Amino acid sequence: MSGNGDRLVQLGRRRFLGAAGAGAVASALGPGATRAGASGPDPAITEVQDWARSLGDGVAVRPYGKPSTFEKHVIRRDVEWLTASRESSVSFTPLHQLDGVITPSGLCFERHHAGIAEIDPAKHRLMINGLVERQMVYTLEDLKRFPGRVNRVHFLECVANSGMEWRGAQLNGCQFTHGMVHNVMYTGVPLKTLLEHCGVRANGKWVLAEGGDASTMTRSLPLEKALKDCLVVWAMNGEALRPEQGYPLRLAVPGWEGNMWVKWLRRIEIGDQPWHQREETSKYTDLLADGRARRFTWIMDAKSVVTNPSPQAPIRHKGPAVLSGIAWSGRGAIQRVDVTLDGGRNWRHARIDGSALPLSLVRFYAEFDWNGEELLVQSRAIDDTGYVQPTKDELRKVRGTNSIYHNNGIQTWLVRTSGETENVEIS
Amino acid sequence: MSGNGDRLVQLGRRRFLGAAGAGAVASALGPGATRAGASGPDPAITEVQDWARSLGDGVAVRPYGKPSTFEKHVIRRDVEWLTASRESSVSFTPLHQLDGVITPSGLCFERHHAGIAEIDPAKHRLMINGLVERQMVYTLEDLKRFPGRVNRVHFLECVANSGMEWRGAQLNGCQFTHGMVHNVMYTGVPLKTLLEHCGVRANGKWVLAEGGDASTMTRSLPLEKALKDCLVVWAMNGEALRPEQGYPLRLAVPGWEGNMWVKWLRRIEIGDQPWHQREETSKYTDLLADGRARRFTWIMDAKSVVTNPSPQAPIRHKGPAVLSGIAWSGRGAIQRVDVTLDGGRNWRHARIDGSALPLSLVRFYAEFDWNGEELLVQSRAIDDTGYVQPTKDELRKVRGTNSIYHNNGIQTWLVRTSGETENVEIS
Repeated sequence: MSGNGDRLVQLGRRRFLGAAGAGAVASALGPGATRAGASGPDPAITEVQDWARSLGDGVAVRPYGKPSTFEKHVIRRDVEWLTASRESSVSFTPLHQLDGVITPSGLCFERHHAGIAEIDPAKHRLMINGLVERQMVYTLEDLKRFPGRVNRVHFLECVANSGMEWRGAQLNGCQFTHGMVHNVMYTGVPLKTLLEHCGVRANGKWVLAEGGDASTMTRSLPLEKALKDCLVVWAMNGEALRPEQGYPLRLAVPGWEGNMWVKWLRRIEIGDQPWHQREETSKYTDLLADGRARRFTWIMDAKSVVTNPSPQAPIRHKGPAVLSGIAWSGRGAIQRVDVTLDGGRNWRHARIDGSALPLSLVRFYAEFDWNGEELLVQSRAIDDTGYVQPTKDELRKVRGTNSIYHNNGIQTWLVRTSGETENVEIS
Repeated sequence: MSGNGDRLVQLGRRRFLGAAGAGAVASALGPGATRAGASGPDPAITEVQDWARSLGDGVAVRPYGKPSTFEKHVIRRDVEWLTASRESSVSFTPLHQLDGVITPSGLCFERHHAGIAEIDPAKHRLMINGLVERQMVYTLEDLKRFPGRVNRVHFLECVANSGMEWRGAQLNGCQFTHGMVHNVMYTGVPLKTLLEHCGVRANGKWVLAEGGDASTMTRSLPLEKALKDCLVVWAMNGEALRPEQGYPLRLAVPGWEGNMWVKWLRRIEIGDQPWHQREETSKYTDLLADGRARRFTWIMDAKSVVTNPSPQAPIRHKGPAVLSGIAWSGRGAIQRVDVTLDGGRNWRHARIDGSALPLSLVRFYAEFDWNGEELLVQSRAIDDTGYVQPTKDELRKVRGTNSIYHNNGIQTWLVRTSGETENVEIS
């Protein structure tokens, strides 16, 4: 911690009390406690509130619960002009309204190629064919009888996350710039277990995953990855997959592009070379400035974003503030996150909450004292391979701006003196 | 693994294939794969399914998502005869339909004393008074500005969980015998931070937590526990607390009785002795056989239950089967879980999934091959203090059967030759 421009400070009790004098957190003089700035006791605490005057709803009135009516603004949102149809489009996770590292299942972003297939699980099958000793067809019940079931927490990021930002700051909110990521606990069996059950032939080197929706989404992945850590999953956050996340079955491809996590999974084929299907040629390749295209750019590089403050979550008060954000890497675990308030002149280490699980979101915090000055807020993730999240300009130098994919550049938020916050770029 | 009565086996590929011959998992002969026992190709995989013939719903059709319509049976349930009113009653988590260790927020059991308070967060306050240097009133926004915010995964068990089973096997389903437990990731600030902000006086030794609902639920807890690991939390599983879980604010008292996790938290008082309020005298004390009562029995001892198979989740097929369950301890981390299929003559170690977090549910599995014989299924948890989950009879010898609280005895499920499963006791 050094440098004149550094406004990030460790916030102790004394400091916080100091800010209270400015109306932030109130001290009270007696049992009829008052908040500073109020002219007398606060009736919100001294009086019996309406909700305490009568019985509320009883148990099981909502057999499946939902959020408070006061949380109606916490929803997935789409951007209507972004795509021609909502059936082949995306909705975004409200990252600025979440905390911790578990994304509630109802708020996980969506990306569909032909809308949400509504599948009767009793009629769903998974077929494994191609270069295997025994071609197999499994029901859901079959899969739940395999040994070695596991639960793992993984992030899933759409490769087009932050894609609109390649050509400059555009969407005003981390929900829209970074909201194509979620993080849940999956339950399933290792794909390896199923492939061993079928017996992969010696010449089998590639795996095709095929979805059961109308788009028949298909992607090739190397057998090595399939055997390493891929899962065939039927549950997320403890319950069955949600329809928009592939109910009743999806492939989990930890750390790799979200489109490879094939939803409504119906078929796995083993082959001796990649298939070059539509979704790995016309889509999900990265066109460079010279006209060549990168292909098979599967791994999601280390990335982070400050979720608070951000355009949808401005700073409301001077004094103590909690900067918060998320970081992740498709190559392993996040080792460190740096944050700056002055556009990169001074950096400090953010506090990573809990233990940083590999191939999972981590939550970071940095407390600071806001004096009402303009801020340029950024975060920078470093993973355990030593990879450092680059600036957008560094990325553009290498990749150009033809592609909308794999933008993991550092995001800048401008906090104005009013506390209002905007998506900007600095160079 | 030894003993004639032992039917738990490690399940290898060969074994699983062997079972497939009995119709469990099918091998197929060619690209038109067939399941064993079927007379030809399975149209569920060879034909284009209805849901793949047209576009499904687009993105953001459900801005806050919900489960598939095929999962309508996965709900909290109550037992109507158990209590006089639903406003002071309980609903139960469907443990047999969940997996992993995160309980979906919509399925977390409920226990209310005066129904669900529906609180406008802008009007909610937390007051800290009593033996403190500075009596304070906080808004939600104030609390979110404190340094040291944390996220922690903890189980919460109602002290009356399994209470109906003290006098013998009664409720036929783990949802009802053990469903007053859930496990979520909480976000909040340590209570210690707030108490330091107020300055606890030297004679302050006890903490009273008071809820804002019509029951004004109040419990005393020692200052030592408050300073050790209690949290004031506003979020669960990444989003705001659900109304039935205390929205917008609750106390987290890791490892201790659920009723102490005061919901709709409005006041914390510091005193020099316990208050002996209604909920710690007429309720939540344990009447012994000799008429004396245990009080302040805060800690939830180590416990476990097999969730599958169980009465609501019978075994459907001979051959490979996955036994699954959950274990927890209010004294620390689960170190080991033993399971038996023959009523305790032979035990083996279950496989604990992932790392066992302290004061959190852990998920365990044990694969076995079911030959159609009757089973007496049990699980037994051991925590890292060396405490071993007792039998119900051992508990009754010490505690009698007057109380409905703190029943952490070993549960027995009888699996009949049909696969149907019942709640039984053996001695």
